[in-house]
Amino acid sequence: MEYLILGGNGFIGSYIVDEVLSNGHSVTVLDIGPEKYREPIYGVKYVYGSIDNQKLLNETFRNKDILIHSVSTTSPFSSNQNIEYDIQSNLINAINIFKVAVENNIKRIIYLSSGGAIYGEPTSIPIPESHHTNPISSYGITKLAIEKYLQYFSLNFGIEYNIIRPSNPYGPRQNPFGNQGVISVFLGKVLKGEVIEIWGDGNVAKDYIFISDLASAIYSASVSKKVSEIYNIGSSTFISLNDIIEVIRKVTGKNVELNHMHSNKFDVQKVCLNIEKAKKDLLFEQKTDLLEGVSKTWDFVKNIKY
Amino acid sequence: MEYLILGGNGFIGSYIVDEVLSNGHSVTVLDIGPEKYREPIYGVKYVYGSIDNQKLLNETFRNKDILIHSVSTTSPFSSNQNIEYDIQSNLINAINIFKVAVENNIKRIIYLSSGGAIYGEPTSIPIPESHHTNPISSYGITKLAIEKYLQYFSLNFGIEYNIIRPSNPYGPRQNPFGNQGVISVFLGKVLKGEVIEIWGDGNVAKDYIFISDLASAIYSASVSKKVSEIYNIGSSTFISLNDIIEVIRKVTGKNVELNHMHSNKFDVQKVCLNIEKAKKDLLFEQKTDLLEGVSKTWDFVKNIKY
Repeated sequence: MEYLILGGNGFIGSYIVDEVLSNGHSVTVLDIGPEKYREPIYGVKYVYGSIDNQKLLNETFRNKDILIHSVSTTSPFSSNQNIEYDIQSNLINAINIFKVAVENNIKRIIYLSSGGAIYGEPTSIPIPESHHTNPISSYGITKLAIEKYLQYFSLNFGIEYNIIRPSNPYGPRQNPFGNQGVISVFLGKVLKGEVIEIWGDGNVAKDYIFISDLASAIYSASVSKKVSEIYNIGSSTFISLNDIIEVIRKVTGKNVELNHMHSNKFDVQKVCLNIEKAKKDLLFEQKTDLLEGVSKTWDFVKNIKY
Repeated sequence: MEYLILGGNGFIGSYIVDEVLSNGHSVTVLDIGPEKYREPIYGVKYVYGSIDNQKLLNETFRNKDILIHSVSTTSPFSSNQNIEYDIQSNLINAINIFKVAVENNIKRIIYLSSGGAIYGEPTSIPIPESHHTNPISSYGITKLAIEKYLQYFSLNFGIEYNIIRPSNPYGPRQNPFGNQGVISVFLGKVLKGEVIEIWGDGNVAKDYIFISDLASAIYSASVSKKVSEIYNIGSSTFISLNDIIEVIRKVTGKNVELNHMHSNKFDVQKVCLNIEKAKKDLLFEQKTDLLEGVSKTWDFVKNIKY
């Protein structure tokens, strides 16, 4: 089948490309620029440009079967700094993407939502997909609205969809010098011998998932007989910042210096996803545990020239 | 206290003005134009302009205690015709309104959401506020997102809020020649001796609430000790289109001709709200039943010159 992967040169997108290719499909990537850490992949068609370029969308969406939307222009933190931009660049662009997909008779859309930001403070742990959705960041609110519009487009125009709500993905090719993905960012600090800043006492605990396990689930959702579904994808395990530091010390063998900062409000303190639905429907399993995952990520990070 | 009522010259807004005035408060109305069916009210300060006029907002929000946001630029039907416009004019403007309210130290915001559009197909009847929210129109999705952003602004900036989810309000001063509010629209048809078009077999059943009962609940929410709450306001009764036609025949004494049309998709078929929470917290009660309400509405409609 013909896959179109929006944001296919980003961290998550690049693993989706690998997964789809390895299953024998054709892949077109639409992204703003090339991959940061790899050369272009043989056999992939790359289209460069912005998702708000209407002409480009019209051309690129032609004759595609499956669309995977993994573009996000904001993080939970940055989204709150400019809510209008978050809405314009994520929500309004998503609606246009769904429209063009319908016009081009694309069969199915897989949308990457967020398991970390969409639920808000949990009332049951691990959090099932049916849990209330009270996001505490603009990032989470726009993701929720995009989910609702995708359901609207499916109901009214018959396009199939599945929604993935990943926990916190990490792994090689995540930017260790950016501001999303604590595991990579911490490893980046270790590489540079810098102090690691930790919000609160380090007991903030979240669910982390190794990137290739996530990509595998996304692919499964794109070929599954089940549609109109929402799937949590994570490890269903609480991993605290202190746990991560411990594993990082073990893997890198380095002295890791910490600096504790005041806690923040734009981020939920305890998230762990219930993944039973994905296990059942998508035969999802976590193949890479934290120790192996951090080890693979460190292998990547330590070879980056900075 | 100083009240600012956005959309105070609209159908719902005009009753909120009456209610707030009669409780001895000062009222400023910000609206695009004057009331359609009444002369300006003595003692009310009117400001004319659009809610996307930043300078006007900054001036008008000064020294106000309570903000009631009852502006909507779309209906469930029209919202789907231009989703981008729905988002721009409702969602993005609401965020700006919340921002300016915070900057001006307004104490409390009351937001008029929708009990008819926000839940989607119900899984339990009557629908409680905790019910899932799967709107099937853009109108419902933007209302939902606005609720979430209001919670966000309260959490982050301390501004108080209550959210009202009304069922279908009706009564005098609702435009009988418009396209929202079936009771008024049907009465408008009767006035003109026109055929009434009914979607489906007339068994579509919804919850209708007389406008002054709704306004009373909105006022209660603006002075309640309880904040950060969502309240359904309705009659908690199923009223079908056929029921309405029967009451209209009784009240008007006229022959009413019907034309049955195909059902639509942008509207939920069966809605009836659970109003126990508002009864308890806001001492809400429905004072005007359907027969009395339609009678009052007909008294208004039959005197309109068209």
